[in-house]
Amino acid sequence: MPYYDDELDAVLRALADPTRRAVVERLARSPAVVSDLAAPFAMALPSLLQHLRVLENAGVVTSEKHGRVRTVSLRPGALDVLHLWLGEQRTPAEHQADRLGIHLARTIDEGPTT
Amino acid sequence: MPYYDDELDAVLRALADPTRRAVVERLARSPAVVSDLAAPFAMALPSLLQHLRVLENAGVVTSEKHGRVRTVSLRPGALDVLHLWLGEQRTPAEHQADRLGIHLARTIDEGPTT
Repeated sequence: MPYYDDELDAVLRALADPTRRAVVERLARSPAVVSDLAAPFAMALPSLLQHLRVLENAGVVTSEKHGRVRTVSLRPGALDVLHLWLGEQRTPAEHQADRLGIHLARTIDEGPTT
Repeated sequence: MPYYDDELDAVLRALADPTRRAVVERLARSPAVVSDLAAPFAMALPSLLQHLRVLENAGVVTSEKHGRVRTVSLRPGALDVLHLWLGEQRTPAEHQADRLGIHLARTIDEGPTT
């Protein structure tokens, strides 16, 4: 699945940086204008804009300009590709633990059989 | 949470490479010896060993040497830190969709109220 791989690669490269993760964490609460995003970081605006470009190219964020103000949002479902990949990496032991958990939950729901 | 951040950073940097992801995908099925891991990759063994070191330093894999044979395994729970972080990045809209889903599931379970 080359498209899926490229998308996953771009998302992981984008997230493998603490500043970009901090931006994602902030945007998960609500969209924000660039100047507000820049405020908590001790970095020049061009550096932050460069990080935002990496996030936007990876499809993690989207942005819209109204007049002189650019608003950045987390793209809905942006991290789904990573969720999906992580789910596929569950080991047989973890799958077995899942099945045991489901079995126990059902047993508890049904109550004692005596 | 500096420890959590460092762990997350190491895991993401480790996974932001297609060869290392392919190794993780292979190890999710079962542990493997280094020579078997090397087989599908058109790369020199030292390069693969370097990738394995990155994965091991990030706590994603563990390895054990018996005689001349080194067996590599996915560390159980190695990717939990990433699962946790992804869960925290759910947007308010996604949380609302979750709540709607739970409400609908309950409504369906309870059946019609008339």
